[in-house]
Amino acid sequence: MNENWMEIKNTALKWMEDAGKMLKESLQDSMHDSLYVNTKSSPNDLVTEMDYKVERFLTEQINNTFPEHKVLGEEEAGADIQSTDGVLWIIDPIDGTTNFVHQKYNFAISVAVAKDGVGQVGIIYNVMQDEWFTAVAGEGAYLNDRRLARVTEVDLPEAVIGLNGRWLAREKRSGEQSLHTMVRKSRSVRSYGSAAIELAYVACGRLDSYISFRLSPWDYAAGLVLLNEVGVITTDFQKQEPSLLEKSKILAARPGLHAQLLHYVHNHEGFDY
Amino acid sequence: MNENWMEIKNTALKWMEDAGKMLKESLQDSMHDSLYVNTKSSPNDLVTEMDYKVERFLTEQINNTFPEHKVLGEEEAGADIQSTDGVLWIIDPIDGTTNFVHQKYNFAISVAVAKDGVGQVGIIYNVMQDEWFTAVAGEGAYLNDRRLARVTEVDLPEAVIGLNGRWLAREKRSGEQSLHTMVRKSRSVRSYGSAAIELAYVACGRLDSYISFRLSPWDYAAGLVLLNEVGVITTDFQKQEPSLLEKSKILAARPGLHAQLLHYVHNHEGFDY
Repeated sequence: MNENWMEIKNTALKWMEDAGKMLKESLQDSMHDSLYVNTKSSPNDLVTEMDYKVERFLTEQINNTFPEHKVLGEEEAGADIQSTDGVLWIIDPIDGTTNFVHQKYNFAISVAVAKDGVGQVGIIYNVMQDEWFTAVAGEGAYLNDRRLARVTEVDLPEAVIGLNGRWLAREKRSGEQSLHTMVRKSRSVRSYGSAAIELAYVACGRLDSYISFRLSPWDYAAGLVLLNEVGVITTDFQKQEPSLLEKSKILAARPGLHAQLLHYVHNHEGFDY
Repeated sequence: MNENWMEIKNTALKWMEDAGKMLKESLQDSMHDSLYVNTKSSPNDLVTEMDYKVERFLTEQINNTFPEHKVLGEEEAGADIQSTDGVLWIIDPIDGTTNFVHQKYNFAISVAVAKDGVGQVGIIYNVMQDEWFTAVAGEGAYLNDRRLARVTEVDLPEAVIGLNGRWLAREKRSGEQSLHTMVRKSRSVRSYGSAAIELAYVACGRLDSYISFRLSPWDYAAGLVLLNEVGVITTDFQKQEPSLLEKSKILAARPGLHAQLLHYVHNHEGFDY
């Protein structure tokens, strides 16, 4: 079957708009204590009732409209999926849950659609800022109605890197190849607390790179489609394509910069958890 | 003379709106190469023609309307000012110049008005996100039309801290009192690249603290007024009030947290520039 990816993208946009409204409404009542329903392994990984609610809403829409498609979600959908054969939706109902709970700002809904392991549609919706980052493979990437330019080469001293301070605080490695040296040689670092938003920022040029040592497919699957459309190189730390089913380290960077950053993160295991 | 601070705030808002339009227009032509006109001491400290242009515009408005007021600006205004006697405007035409040039996003115009050394009006305008953080002493702080709640106590493990990774990358101090330990004990860290925006984020609860080891009065003067209105404690690392004329280190934090963070930054000199 030949899917019409543009149509699928437009359908997904509508569902995500509805999902965004659900999230906004839930935040309007700031006394909504029941938002805190559970904690995962750490305080950084809060799960809220809205996370489940939005994932179930999106999964239901997909199942009803495309019964032959599979769905992999952060919370519960597709936990038994073993292969990327066929059409696979990869969804993160709320990327940046700490921001969602803590800031009521700077969180995103991330939806990707892949066929036989190749990303075809990527959408990252920064709900409160109302920014839509969208891409269909081969058709370019967009921020709202503006087509994003292909990126050019950049060198480390001119680069602004997205990197969470937790990695700098936990690094055991020191010296020339350390993350500390990398940051000192860069123009600057930023951290927004949402991998999806930070990958979208690389796609639109607000960041030149984004680095993370531990992400799941729903954190980056939509970002991969966007980044590929603008020429950003995105791999794990062994320069391999990130998995759509397993956790991966992520190095997304403009050409030139990607090779320079790989020097610092290649084989990096020096963390003190 | 008894100034009408609410009226002065409203007058400043109008000037800042015009200044914001100048900045937005300058960014619309993304090929505007002449934005890069100069560099200060480091690539992090780019100065653009717009920085001068906006400062001159605001200074002119102030001088014309309030000829008896003094103006201290980032670029050139008031470099000879020795005292905070009388009415003093402290303005940062573009806070977050790296973001301005690099992201065309996440930069702010910051304007404070103090009388005899006491902040009376504080306005931080996040231009591209169109967010206005405003305060008049004794009258509360606002984000757009919403009055900001007074902050409550919070402990480090629950706190999201604004801290640039450069400080973590440059720290020589290690062990129990290091910034690294502080970050590991916190919920998370964020970095947005604009001190004014990060202080405004503490005022509205998006961050629980903001820490910087080197700021100038125009970076924080408006933030001080906002933070004071919502009960955030803002001092230097000796627990002294930050100067309105000299550079200062800044620790802004919710009650409880301020004392906890002071432990890590007190007498901190351990940087490797």
